[in-house]
Amino acid sequence: MNPARVELQTPVAGVAEYNALIDVNKSISATHVAGVMALEADDFDKPVRDYVFTGSSSARELIDAMSQAGGFSATKLATARDLLSDQFAALDAAGHDAEKCLNWLSFPACLCATGARGFFVEALRQRRFNVVVSTCGTLDHDIARCHSDYYHGSFELDDHELADAGLNRLGSVIVPNSSYGESIEAVVMPALEDIRSERIESTGLSGTELWKGFGTVELCWELGRRVCDENSILHWAAEHEIPIVIPGPTDGSIGAQLFMFRQRHADFWIDILADEQRLSDLTWLARSSNALMVGGGISKHHVIWWNQYRDGLDSAVYITTAPEHDGSLSGARPREAISWGKLRAQAPHVCVEGDASVLLPLLGADLLSD
Amino acid sequence: MNPARVELQTPVAGVAEYNALIDVNKSISATHVAGVMALEADDFDKPVRDYVFTGSSSARELIDAMSQAGGFSATKLATARDLLSDQFAALDAAGHDAEKCLNWLSFPACLCATGARGFFVEALRQRRFNVVVSTCGTLDHDIARCHSDYYHGSFELDDHELADAGLNRLGSVIVPNSSYGESIEAVVMPALEDIRSERIESTGLSGTELWKGFGTVELCWELGRRVCDENSILHWAAEHEIPIVIPGPTDGSIGAQLFMFRQRHADFWIDILADEQRLSDLTWLARSSNALMVGGGISKHHVIWWNQYRDGLDSAVYITTAPEHDGSLSGARPREAISWGKLRAQAPHVCVEGDASVLLPLLGADLLSD
Amino acid sequence: MNPARVELQTPVAGVAEYNALIDVNKSISATHVAGVMALEADDFDKPVRDYVFTGSSSARELIDAMSQAGGFSATKLATARDLLSDQFAALDAAGHDAEKCLNWLSFPACLCATGARGFFVEALRQRRFNVVVSTCGTLDHDIARCHSDYYHGSFELDDHELADAGLNRLGSVIVPNSSYGESIEAVVMPALEDIRSERIESTGLSGTELWKGFGTVELCWELGRRVCDENSILHWAAEHEIPIVIPGPTDGSIGAQLFMFRQRHADFWIDILADEQRLSDLTWLARSSNALMVGGGISKHHVIWWNQYRDGLDSAVYITTAPEHDGSLSGARPREAISWGKLRAQAPHVCVEGDASVLLPLLGADLLSD
Amino acid sequence: MNPARVELQTPVAGVAEYNALIDVNKSISATHVAGVMALEADDFDKPVRDYVFTGSSSARELIDAMSQAGGFSATKLATARDLLSDQFAALDAAGHDAEKCLNWLSFPACLCATGARGFFVEALRQRRFNVVVSTCGTLDHDIARCHSDYYHGSFELDDHELADAGLNRLGSVIVPNSSYGESIEAVVMPALEDIRSERIESTGLSGTELWKGFGTVELCWELGRRVCDENSILHWAAEHEIPIVIPGPTDGSIGAQLFMFRQRHADFWIDILADEQRLSDLTWLARSSNALMVGGGISKHHVIWWNQYRDGLDSAVYITTAPEHDGSLSGARPREAISWGKLRAQAPHVCVEGDASVLLPLLGADLLSD
Repeated sequence: MNPARVELQTPVAGVAEYNALIDVNKSISATHVAGVMALEADDFDKPVRDYVFTGSSSARELIDAMSQAGGFSATKLATARDLLSDQFAALDAAGHDAEKCLNWLSFPACLCATGARGFFVEALRQRRFNVVVSTCGTLDHDIARCHSDYYHGSFELDDHELADAGLNRLGSVIVPNSSYGESIEAVVMPALEDIRSERIESTGLSGTELWKGFGTVELCWELGRRVCDENSILHWAAEHEIPIVIPGPTDGSIGAQLFMFRQRHADFWIDILADEQRLSDLTWLARSSNALMVGGGISKHHVIWWNQYRDGLDSAVYITTAPEHDGSLSGARPREAISWGKLRAQAPHVCVEGDASVLLPLLGADLLSD
Repeated sequence: MNPARVELQTPVAGVAEYNALIDVNKSISATHVAGVMALEADDFDKPVRDYVFTGSSSARELIDAMSQAGGFSATKLATARDLLSDQFAALDAAGHDAEKCLNWLSFPACLCATGARGFFVEALRQRRFNVVVSTCGTLDHDIARCHSDYYHGSFELDDHELADAGLNRLGSVIVPNSSYGESIEAVVMPALEDIRSERIESTGLSGTELWKGFGTVELCWELGRRVCDENSILHWAAEHEIPIVIPGPTDGSIGAQLFMFRQRHADFWIDILADEQRLSDLTWLARSSNALMVGGGISKHHVIWWNQYRDGLDSAVYITTAPEHDGSLSGARPREAISWGKLRAQAPHVCVEGDASVLLPLLGADLLSD
Repeated sequence: MNPARVELQTPVAGVAEYNALIDVNKSISATHVAGVMALEADDFDKPVRDYVFTGSSSARELIDAMSQAGGFSATKLATARDLLSDQFAALDAAGHDAEKCLNWLSFPACLCATGARGFFVEALRQRRFNVVVSTCGTLDHDIARCHSDYYHGSFELDDHELADAGLNRLGSVIVPNSSYGESIEAVVMPALEDIRSERIESTGLSGTELWKGFGTVELCWELGRRVCDENSILHWAAEHEIPIVIPGPTDGSIGAQLFMFRQRHADFWIDILADEQRLSDLTWLARSSNALMVGGGISKHHVIWWNQYRDGLDSAVYITTAPEHDGSLSGARPREAISWGKLRAQAPHVCVEGDASVLLPLLGADLLSD
Repeated sequence: MNPARVELQTPVAGVAEYNALIDVNKSISATHVAGVMALEADDFDKPVRDYVFTGSSSARELIDAMSQAGGFSATKLATARDLLSDQFAALDAAGHDAEKCLNWLSFPACLCATGARGFFVEALRQRRFNVVVSTCGTLDHDIARCHSDYYHGSFELDDHELADAGLNRLGSVIVPNSSYGESIEAVVMPALEDIRSERIESTGLSGTELWKGFGTVELCWELGRRVCDENSILHWAAEHEIPIVIPGPTDGSIGAQLFMFRQRHADFWIDILADEQRLSDLTWLARSSNALMVGGGISKHHVIWWNQYRDGLDSAVYITTAPEHDGSLSGARPREAISWGKLRAQAPHVCVEGDASVLLPLLGADLLSD
């Protein structure tokens, strides 16, 4: 059989076309928002390009290819990379001065039970963000893992058997009891005693007055100074004096330590309004404010909440698995934040749907490897 | 055409078969857990029954039919209804004594911006739960909606135009600026001043000492006493002295009021460790502990966190849209809690996947309508 | 303590306000699409109303309340109910004449393994739709369940043990081997022989010519005529001559029977292009075309695909759990169909996110119970 | 301030520990399945390792790090990479003999509208799979994109404006009318005429007899032979005689061409049972059978359906965004297939939750770049 071949005219891309790393979405939507004119067919001139797998490609080359591939989450991931790259460059250009550029990072605790902790550690070590919001569990895992290992497990393990064996399951990660509460208590209680002595000595105060101004930022720095582990988030937050705000500090193992310390010292309290003062100062002064929000919950909300007081973030990257349709804050897309003035109307933004356990290391291998 | 009919033997169900409201999952898994014997074909004897739509059926009849229908989320919803019914009956039987029976309710704020607030209001009015954990936004919406209306909108509205019009979008709900921050400030600041005066008068204390023991439970009750609206969650929490714990009280509009109050009165603080003392007391004493957890985040975690100190909840109903695969606490299924001792090994439990905006009114129409 | 009460002005709703069952989304978006003017604050005047659980409420009353509740999927479900009610009324008004009104129904097979089959059965019995698109599995379960029962199981069962016991798991439904392939073979093979004899007798044709024009519509009707079970989808499709199109008829147990029949009779084939002719005729002639699409996949696509040839559906209801972000047809929202001309620009439409196992019986209890 | 540092004992990993690329899940679950003994704490000895971002890392190094990171989807992705690597090696070792090793690939059409088509093209070019199941849209996009470009767009574009401009939106990809139906018609109709003439000439048959044995496999090869574009899936399928089965061939633009061809030549039909014969032969003969299933729907089901006739696949990789809880085949996890005998009880398998637009290029950059 010798079929007559239909000659196809394959597209030939010029160098300029490939090099044009302009964000199509941004340019299209800018036109659209301006409302000057309706869409036209030739508004779209950036062709979809297939991946070509030749030779070993770096994470950067792979994400570059995603920006050409024109598809779904991959394109969004490339946009996220570009926005984060811009955020990092802006903070560098500002000489890490928070009044010039304030880069927010929020994330949930679960990732800190996995290797993705390495993303946060490296980002803080490189001073890519200068304010962090997270949950109590982040502190728990960060401290526990300085002492003991967590282990590879599986979502499908039998939880009854795990319970009998003294093993806690966090998704597919195994957290032995011996790696968790005990380690944390061994670090935190002496640290709190130590902090108390220092505060008494340095302030001369007593009773509840002693703890005024001791918020979670101070707690994190004090703990970080006592963790001599370069693999620790707290270590680098302390080292670079990057504030970590935990708006719900009682909700976890560190919170349990705080509660136990209160039982020892009835005057102890944690000054979460001092954290708000710090965030207020940072937010009011920042000339530019940008964020990477991984996951949802209280951490994400606290970032966008504070940014409404300055008429919104200047750029935002969301990474989430939460759906929008249930009306939750966790699932709300960036454009909802525009209606509230939590994101500026013209701010570049992207929401990458997917599991951060995959997306963060890919972003890190590009942005944090230099 | 006169086709030869194949006579089919249709199943005939006896009354006993229909009436047997035994939870198949529970009986099967109990056998399985016991490990006495492997599954056998005749372990499964509860046939799937099609819905029959004849005449007007009540919510209860509909959920009863779901328990027969054998399918997916519907069967889980029927199980959830049964477990909640048992929880409610246990609390009634205990004469609402928290030492005998402690029923926990946690939920996210977004639902309180919708009519689903009515579920929580009615549940508290009927004293179906005796401890609540939620987020700051719940207080915000509950108070704001006592003063002003929120409106029907749409997920697809143009957020730039909304922002220009002073309208905030919360999913498909429109929250006018005028219905929100202003209303809240008008209620909360006078209330805080009032509370302060009362504390000074009743305690004779001053400075930071004045606020020791003033946690979010007290805040909620004080606010609830000042909200003369029977449609308010806070009202009924105060009326029945049901503790509402907000583990992250700074994260929202009420939090902003607390922060503003601190700026007026430099000694003001909010004693979140006092909340923990209350939860500790409740948890240690409760002979039975059960929960309905709607959504995830800090509220869900705080409920299961405290229950680990009593070796786990005795029954649990989760309603969630969060996926399990990302390892998040929000998406973790009940059995993960078993490994941590946050849910007892033999505790009945169910996770109903779906949007609570649909599931809660259906449950409420059955369970709260008597 | 006698706190000064803050008198709150609660909203008073007039009767007219409650009775106004105007679809806010539609009116807002109509204005918006027209582009005449930007949104204004007073465009939104339908307040969110809390559920009130008093006395036994019917499914209809519950959905009515959802239309007032202003929240997320619940509001969408109420809109879906209204659109379906309109679709049903239009078909009634058309005297069930497909040239005047064509109502499409598509759905996946899995629901037919559960009690949700009852929704489809009743909808066809009442002639609420006059063309159906589904997958092979729908036929499999419909026929199997005429003979034998499926059983209540659980998602968490041990699949290794189930396999050993000859039990297949379909989500939380147990399909015994004995209830499935054997039942289907016992019905289908004699039916096909029977059909073959009839075609030979009535046409006088032989060889491959014999089967020209025998598409899945004819297959379904022939099977339906042989299923003397009023609980069967096929029965009512045959009874009312409602075409059921299965665009992928080889993919399942009935497909296996067709393949086995081909092995017996080498000239046998299934004329899927005859189905397309039928859909083409229906689509071109229909003055109004509307759809309920449950789930995604080939069934959903086939419905919207054909409607592009008439410039789009006149109204559409989607029910789905598929996310939009992955670019899949299953997850595509109605507005994507507008760009393709598969849904008319001004067609009312809604996508209700959620599990049909819960949503369909709720809709059925309202719409199909009269 | 000079805090007393708490000396932490950081874990020291030996080389052996790092090199042990044993799949923890597999070893644990094997023990568990065997039922010899319950889980014990020291069953888990593979510690979670943080990512270290130093220097430019290749996709392979990144996935290697994911296998160490212990988290959620990332670990699953690494397992998927390992299983696919094994599948590819087995097919190589078998000298691409389908009787020795049969590697199945299924995927949805939407990805072929993006650069992810490059994954499938390269995989077929390298003969990594020897049987493919997909939907009609795959053919549509593959052919259309040989002629014309698709373009980068955005999910948020105004679909009304797009419709007015003759632009179809497929997720975030713009498919101009001029790039789609017209291109496809220009290729397919002449090809079908050509095929018809050839069949008449080579067989001497006429009428419906002419088309017996002309299934979608033959259709795809004939089209592939006429597409002289090395970027085409069809091209490589034809080149290497890899069967592509489209179980629902009428559902899309190629299907419309088939229907139009039937209108020209009333005897034309497409022999989908011939495809089944081919799959039957392949399945019965294959000594080893393995699959990569991207997405769900009819394509996924057809792969696992046929494998039940040989007692199940020997290994399986699923990539999906579909949830399990709705009971859909698309969302069903591998273990459900075990109960049906569609996956062998001891077969290694993994389901990676996430958008294939991100996951496939990452896998391709590792597995297809050599």
